[in-house]
Amino acid sequence: MGARAEFGPFRQEGWRRRAFPLELAPLSFRLPPMIPKTLQWTDDGLELLDQTLLPLEEQRLLCRTPEDVARAIKRLVVRGAPAIGVAAAYGVCLAAKNDPATVPEAIAVLSRSRPTAVNLFWALERMRRCYEKNGGDLERLVEEASFIEQEDAQRCRRIGEAGAALLPDSAVILTHCHAGALATAGEGTALSILYAAKRMGKSLRVFADETRPLLQGARITAWELDRAGIDVTLITDNMAAAVMRDFGVTSVIVGADRIALNGDTANKIGTYGLAVLANYHGIPFYVAAPLSTFDRTAADGSAIPIEERDPEEVRAPRGTRFASPDTKVYNPAFDVTPADLITALVTDAGVIAPNRGEISKLLDKEPTLVGVNRDI
Amino acid sequence: MGARAEFGPFRQEGWRRRAFPLELAPLSFRLPPMIPKTLQWTDDGLELLDQTLLPLEEQRLLCRTPEDVARAIKRLVVRGAPAIGVAAAYGVCLAAKNDPATVPEAIAVLSRSRPTAVNLFWALERMRRCYEKNGGDLERLVEEASFIEQEDAQRCRRIGEAGAALLPDSAVILTHCHAGALATAGEGTALSILYAAKRMGKSLRVFADETRPLLQGARITAWELDRAGIDVTLITDNMAAAVMRDFGVTSVIVGADRIALNGDTANKIGTYGLAVLANYHGIPFYVAAPLSTFDRTAADGSAIPIEERDPEEVRAPRGTRFASPDTKVYNPAFDVTPADLITALVTDAGVIAPNRGEISKLLDKEPTLVGVNRDI
Repeated sequence: MGARAEFGPFRQEGWRRRAFPLELAPLSFRLPPMIPKTLQWTDDGLELLDQTLLPLEEQRLLCRTPEDVARAIKRLVVRGAPAIGVAAAYGVCLAAKNDPATVPEAIAVLSRSRPTAVNLFWALERMRRCYEKNGGDLERLVEEASFIEQEDAQRCRRIGEAGAALLPDSAVILTHCHAGALATAGEGTALSILYAAKRMGKSLRVFADETRPLLQGARITAWELDRAGIDVTLITDNMAAAVMRDFGVTSVIVGADRIALNGDTANKIGTYGLAVLANYHGIPFYVAAPLSTFDRTAADGSAIPIEERDPEEVRAPRGTRFASPDTKVYNPAFDVTPADLITALVTDAGVIAPNRGEISKLLDKEPTLVGVNRDI
Repeated sequence: MGARAEFGPFRQEGWRRRAFPLELAPLSFRLPPMIPKTLQWTDDGLELLDQTLLPLEEQRLLCRTPEDVARAIKRLVVRGAPAIGVAAAYGVCLAAKNDPATVPEAIAVLSRSRPTAVNLFWALERMRRCYEKNGGDLERLVEEASFIEQEDAQRCRRIGEAGAALLPDSAVILTHCHAGALATAGEGTALSILYAAKRMGKSLRVFADETRPLLQGARITAWELDRAGIDVTLITDNMAAAVMRDFGVTSVIVGADRIALNGDTANKIGTYGLAVLANYHGIPFYVAAPLSTFDRTAADGSAIPIEERDPEEVRAPRGTRFASPDTKVYNPAFDVTPADLITALVTDAGVIAPNRGEISKLLDKEPTLVGVNRDI
């Protein structure tokens, strides 16, 4: 596939379109329109934009098996908690397409791709239930995966609108990692707030942490915001404190990989430090996430598994060596921000305070989280 | 020059050795012994270890003119505030060696190499006075530069001893940038404290911030501490908060590039954030610096010029591109930590609180800072 190939709307004829509680967002809808889709289910398999190559190249990777998808998740070809969930759901469809008897094993393989983002397990659980109910019926499985995808786009839009209302008319935002369109199947979580604010006519200036070691901020956030015509300045992570103080930052907005019942939030490494700095400077610290990122089984942050990754990501990014191969390294991909440092959680069901009471109330009303059978 | 060539002691016969208040440290003394010298004055010129090539290569660069030295300072071939001062002093000697009439111009050129580290201006002022008194007498100028060099090694040793007394017997240190031997003409400032603590038999574990964008922590600190046999773990800058919380960090120790009269301290970008994090976690935050790093003419941190450097250092370190060349970047090389976040200043004249009263008292007693004529 060449760079920036256009993806059309749903090309799979014959799928039964079910009545669905959320308003469907058209698949080809993407604001800003200049950003390629994160993924696309096709006749040949699951196409993923290869995010490891950004910003220098826009190439797609075609996955034909669930193992392909698991590897792609592990390598961060596709990344961002919501996007991981959607990709895994389609990974299950690939298993069904190849041989329906392999679906349970595919779910197991995909569940081991990365441990922290709970959306992965949430999506696989939905696919597991669908399989349980319908067996290897490919159409039904693809439909479920497509619902997960479309809902995610809708959740992103709602997060955007809820969060944009919180921003001043002239906002200076600091963000971390990449919680934009390519982290989801829609407009993003943290960045969706910026897109909605822009539509509302608010003025925006963004500072983006480059986000070592894998530089999602430098490679993806800066690139996406540039494409969207939003004023973005790239900084190294260690500049955040000085920038908060010297540039009148009004809001710090980040995404999340897993939110515990008490509001403790696991997100890209460095988020915890940002939260401390934001609080020190009296700047509101917002976590933007869909309800699929909440984990009812985690009472607090200590229950969230923190992935550790290859030390060479720190020593030699992209093969350019900065530190000797013998140098000891610590490389946790996430950290946990305690709820008391979070001003508010911006979700697709509204803005809430980060505490057990409000979170439980919201989760109780989320159909995909309580196993309520939809009309299947 | 090959890797790790040994530098012998003073090879310049015939220099008049003056009585000098500070005890001379032998030039070849270096703990740990496995670390090459930062610089060496030779018959051919000023040899500098090229720190831009670390840790992969140990090569020396020979400077024959003051312009060579200014360029080397600008490029960070030699870096670290004390080392910059010593190098500049010898840069003046190169001018005298080539043509004594060019000394004033050389001082001007060197003074423009980098704006933040005050040791540069302190050293050039001493050379200027020496020239004023003795004209183009090369011997006297080289002697003055060598005094600056030897004093610096002595100052490092005193900082080390003063600071080591502050550490617990079992210390977990977090440090930033590189404030070790190669930042000075001796054992370093922040790292000298670790070397002294090690000699005292204290147990040490160090976490070193890699320190984007130029990665002095990854390339030089981690390498130097490994050579010294001190347990060091390299982390990305954004991991500092999680490490402070999860690894029982007992002390944060950093160097400095310029300290104002009220104790506000300019140091490598990211220091301010670390100070906020340290305070949040109740961890002592120490700034280690010789008196040559203090600036009597700066009432507070707002008077300290902050160098901004090439944006490509952020976008494409070592030519490996992470962000598009069009991406806007902010690249300040330093930030200012307010005195109220600093637990103590560890200087070669003892440990003091970061306030105007204590600082003034110390500076009043420092001979090289009040223009008191030594017996020349």
